[in-house]
Amino acid sequence: MIRAGIVGGTGYTGVELLRILALHPQVQVTAVTSRADAGQRVDKTYPSLRGLCDAVFATPDSENLSDCDVVFFATPNGTAMNMAAELLMRGIKVIDLSADFRIKDVAEWEKWYGMSHTSPELIAEAVYGLPEVNREAIKQARLIACPGCYPTAVQLGFLPLLEAGIIDADSLIADVKSGVSGAGRKAEISSLMSEAGESFKAYAVAGHRHLPEIRQGLELASAQSVGLTFVPHLTPMIRGIHATLYARLKSAVDLQSVFEQRYQTEDFVDVLPSGAHADTRNVRGSNRCQIAVHQPQAGNTVVILSVIDNLVKGASGQAVQNMNLLFGFPEQQGLETVALYP
Amino acid sequence: MIRAGIVGGTGYTGVELLRILALHPQVQVTAVTSRADAGQRVDKTYPSLRGLCDAVFATPDSENLSDCDVVFFATPNGTAMNMAAELLMRGIKVIDLSADFRIKDVAEWEKWYGMSHTSPELIAEAVYGLPEVNREAIKQARLIACPGCYPTAVQLGFLPLLEAGIIDADSLIADVKSGVSGAGRKAEISSLMSEAGESFKAYAVAGHRHLPEIRQGLELASAQSVGLTFVPHLTPMIRGIHATLYARLKSAVDLQSVFEQRYQTEDFVDVLPSGAHADTRNVRGSNRCQIAVHQPQAGNTVVILSVIDNLVKGASGQAVQNMNLLFGFPEQQGLETVALYP
Amino acid sequence: MIRAGIVGGTGYTGVELLRILALHPQVQVTAVTSRADAGQRVDKTYPSLRGLCDAVFATPDSENLSDCDVVFFATPNGTAMNMAAELLMRGIKVIDLSADFRIKDVAEWEKWYGMSHTSPELIAEAVYGLPEVNREAIKQARLIACPGCYPTAVQLGFLPLLEAGIIDADSLIADVKSGVSGAGRKAEISSLMSEAGESFKAYAVAGHRHLPEIRQGLELASAQSVGLTFVPHLTPMIRGIHATLYARLKSAVDLQSVFEQRYQTEDFVDVLPSGAHADTRNVRGSNRCQIAVHQPQAGNTVVILSVIDNLVKGASGQAVQNMNLLFGFPEQQGLETVALYP
Amino acid sequence: MIRAGIVGGTGYTGVELLRILALHPQVQVTAVTSRADAGQRVDKTYPSLRGLCDAVFATPDSENLSDCDVVFFATPNGTAMNMAAELLMRGIKVIDLSADFRIKDVAEWEKWYGMSHTSPELIAEAVYGLPEVNREAIKQARLIACPGCYPTAVQLGFLPLLEAGIIDADSLIADVKSGVSGAGRKAEISSLMSEAGESFKAYAVAGHRHLPEIRQGLELASAQSVGLTFVPHLTPMIRGIHATLYARLKSAVDLQSVFEQRYQTEDFVDVLPSGAHADTRNVRGSNRCQIAVHQPQAGNTVVILSVIDNLVKGASGQAVQNMNLLFGFPEQQGLETVALYP
Repeated sequence: MIRAGIVGGTGYTGVELLRILALHPQVQVTAVTSRADAGQRVDKTYPSLRGLCDAVFATPDSENLSDCDVVFFATPNGTAMNMAAELLMRGIKVIDLSADFRIKDVAEWEKWYGMSHTSPELIAEAVYGLPEVNREAIKQARLIACPGCYPTAVQLGFLPLLEAGIIDADSLIADVKSGVSGAGRKAEISSLMSEAGESFKAYAVAGHRHLPEIRQGLELASAQSVGLTFVPHLTPMIRGIHATLYARLKSAVDLQSVFEQRYQTEDFVDVLPSGAHADTRNVRGSNRCQIAVHQPQAGNTVVILSVIDNLVKGASGQAVQNMNLLFGFPEQQGLETVALYP
Repeated sequence: MIRAGIVGGTGYTGVELLRILALHPQVQVTAVTSRADAGQRVDKTYPSLRGLCDAVFATPDSENLSDCDVVFFATPNGTAMNMAAELLMRGIKVIDLSADFRIKDVAEWEKWYGMSHTSPELIAEAVYGLPEVNREAIKQARLIACPGCYPTAVQLGFLPLLEAGIIDADSLIADVKSGVSGAGRKAEISSLMSEAGESFKAYAVAGHRHLPEIRQGLELASAQSVGLTFVPHLTPMIRGIHATLYARLKSAVDLQSVFEQRYQTEDFVDVLPSGAHADTRNVRGSNRCQIAVHQPQAGNTVVILSVIDNLVKGASGQAVQNMNLLFGFPEQQGLETVALYP
Repeated sequence: MIRAGIVGGTGYTGVELLRILALHPQVQVTAVTSRADAGQRVDKTYPSLRGLCDAVFATPDSENLSDCDVVFFATPNGTAMNMAAELLMRGIKVIDLSADFRIKDVAEWEKWYGMSHTSPELIAEAVYGLPEVNREAIKQARLIACPGCYPTAVQLGFLPLLEAGIIDADSLIADVKSGVSGAGRKAEISSLMSEAGESFKAYAVAGHRHLPEIRQGLELASAQSVGLTFVPHLTPMIRGIHATLYARLKSAVDLQSVFEQRYQTEDFVDVLPSGAHADTRNVRGSNRCQIAVHQPQAGNTVVILSVIDNLVKGASGQAVQNMNLLFGFPEQQGLETVALYP
Repeated sequence: MIRAGIVGGTGYTGVELLRILALHPQVQVTAVTSRADAGQRVDKTYPSLRGLCDAVFATPDSENLSDCDVVFFATPNGTAMNMAAELLMRGIKVIDLSADFRIKDVAEWEKWYGMSHTSPELIAEAVYGLPEVNREAIKQARLIACPGCYPTAVQLGFLPLLEAGIIDADSLIADVKSGVSGAGRKAEISSLMSEAGESFKAYAVAGHRHLPEIRQGLELASAQSVGLTFVPHLTPMIRGIHATLYARLKSAVDLQSVFEQRYQTEDFVDVLPSGAHADTRNVRGSNRCQIAVHQPQAGNTVVILSVIDNLVKGASGQAVQNMNLLFGFPEQQGLETVALYP
């Protein structure tokens, strides 16, 4: 049994960590912090957790986290970079769900995130927490930078193609659609149901913060520079990401087989049978990525459909998967939940 | 480990049974029948179950069910009554999620369901599977008639008041709202998203089949005749029932305390703190009923808010709860899933 | 052609006024104010109005409204009461969509709205803008207090019964469901799609501000005190209110005929055929109220279903209907839009 | 005043024609046919039309349509081709909203639509009813083939680029998302709210019937063969299509200006200001196409966002726009409705 702390427990990734860890047999959540709700019972804010979580929100001080074995940051960008060093010094593992340690190029990070990085020395040490790529490094890490939701869906879809060297890497297109929970539990006009419901739109076409993160991952996988057009969209549902990925094939190849082999030992990546389509509902609430592979009219354009639940495999589920690796637990433990259909 | 069969595996209550039983440590699903999909893999129809269910849909013959310890009927009304007797004769327990054995008065049943009952002799034996009322009888039963979704939410809300004899039983009002999955997985115009989405309506105001079932339960609880107006509504969401119940108080009483005492030992009925409201999202995917108790302006009208997930506590979860009781398993086993919020 | 001003043009009732007035042949919108967006083109905030509205948001000063013939207040409560007197002095008609002038009892208003009323002298003069009740008074008025959305749906449903004296007025129940646009265009957590989507809940069961307004209207209609339990609910859709109303009949009567006669000359109240149900989608975007009348199992409880679009007949459409009466235009002018189905 | 008939009045494009024509000052709908509902009042099926449409569904015989000036086919594919010739012979104009006359290559049509064409001789005569391309030909036509919903959104987005010859035509990508009303008013499992709600998926990636139609239009515009990957998706809302279009630029050009000039005289195509995004809600219920033009990171990939309401500009509104042209009415007449926001 390990002791876990959650910093930023009132956001959607925070409460999702609580949902998952409530049933994890080897984890006890001993601290949940929230500056805004400090002193209030967690299950008052989240009645879905009644009977499963006796915690009271604490202030996000290191003191309140000092007896944890692992601390999750489910915070806005810019918080973890200020607190991680002290926790690591105390021997506490840190799993950051925010973007603070995802991008190795500090200047690039500062450009996209619009702030100075206060712990640049930790960036090099941080391991990018995509287990399907970095499993062994994760096991040895002290500090994990969990991938963003879009980057998870897009990378898992493109990686087999890039690793196999069978597509033209300079003109990739990722047309990605997200449910509204991706915008977080923030009081913003654009996330109101009256605004986001019954409507569909693209946003941030000029450039989204997840672009450099995705490109970094794809370039590592392909050992070359990658040209990527990434267009995120908001779709009127709560959970789910659907990435539709386009690339040009360099030569004929059995695409289905490329994907099945790449992921045959992965518990959380499921390559659908040839001809199938991926549907976000089939992974809702689960830690799975489902992928479908298409080559329309047998042309030279490959179309990959990659779906995840943005709050699970795209955030808190993946964080727990990383935690399992860090502490030597079975990788699936606590993550067996079946998708909620319908 | 017991062996379970599911008749009618392609409907929403069928696939929900599969979702729940997939992780139940003491149950192996050995037969799933579907006349329409016989011969096809279950996980082709339901990709959310990939890796968790190797079954192939079988035809709904007794042969295919003969080595089961328990058979669930997740079928339209009128099927279980034709098959139950033979299964019982073979020593197989039967848990019927349809309406076939819910109503003790055969004539009443035939009037509301518009068909002749083919096993009237089993009606008397069948135990109405509302564990919060019939727990001991359920443990001894061979044949369980699982309550309907509306009846579960309405009865759990009214029972404490009627048992305590503190309300006027002749003018109860149940204004109940259901998500669209309650209509089942049937190709009907009225259940299309273009019809049911972004709209709200009442239906069957003249009389809904769940009315006699609810009345029967309330009359048993209060040992008197009950006057009930029941108006079901369709609300544009997939899962969830919200019952808003109105009754007139006969005298001053601490209502909150009446409910808390009635349900203090119940794992699946959660009385919310005074002043709270119940929200269907907080029970989505879980087997819980959450109840809030109100007495507006301290008047003589009591307002009870009772929410469940219609497919879990309102159907398949309650069926598994009954199964646990029947076989002496812990009542919560396999039903620990936390509600999926957001 | 008259000149109209809109104070508070960035909220949903404000933009709805712009949508309706854009095609009204006798109205030119000459001023739209918004403190927050002053200086910005209206169609930048609302691209749906491109080509139909050249206005730029102005500050909400009397100067900017001084050449108007009529000014609509689409503001939060507490604004109109500070500006109305000056506009009236200049001979400008005022149509207030907020609650400032709806309740005749100042102390009651101050209790429910939590502020002191700054223009109590205007309350007596203000005409409650429900044309189906006050048509002649509206034609002569200078200051109109438009009804709230819930009060419109509930009063139109109960009025025929109370005016006819055929129900017991001391135990009315109004179980009412609203789409989320009723909460306005405000950045609040509870109105996020992730919170309000796919879920259903009651709120303010202890007491909602529309309760005294409804009671006032019903008491006027029945010339007696009225006992009312009013429970508002939030339903996961954008537009629409569905009121389910319950009352006890005092004697046998042809209910359908009572309603048809009461509303036979009303353009905007449509009594559905006997046996029908009312569906909010059938009035979405239109200024209609549709009403269905039921008497389940021929008992002594009457059930009325009353639906409106909360932003049209429940707010801006009704305001324009009032304006038409005030200026002697045909009552339907500019309000011919057919409901948007599906 | 002309007399119009609608064949197939019970589908969504049929009822949408009724909604639009109800307020058209120069059109009287004199016949609405429906084999299934013959003999029943139209407003019983569609209560949104009460008071606006006195028609009774007739059988779809030529007799019932013989005194029309124009007949709209809002039918499944394969119906109009059997009835058009006779109507044309009687001097009646025909506007077909189905796919029967859209594709000039009969063999290609028969391959994609899986049936033999029964009026191949009319295909050559039929004018493709995209007014922004074929306005003059439409004015002279007897038989109009209205474009499909996807083809309208995609062609309006790509045409300026292809006509200007500034993109590489052999690798176009159209990633398009549709609301569920695009599937029609058919009782199909996949269109149930429980299936299509709260979920997002691609479908028909291997090849969708609108692919050859789009390609035909783009090839005509560019006078060369076109390579197109078209991936349709289902998004959980009722109305709206959002096309995200990708192409490679051949040289630097002021893209915003190309689009603004192309559509400067078009009433129903609105090029949004530079930097804006298109949102389907802003055209919901209106006949507009709104287009936004992007060139992310000033690279050589152009991204066009093109939104329509699939039932209006994508079907019935465009059909009325064609009718206006055919009969010399103002092109906007009856199509002034402002989008319903929120």
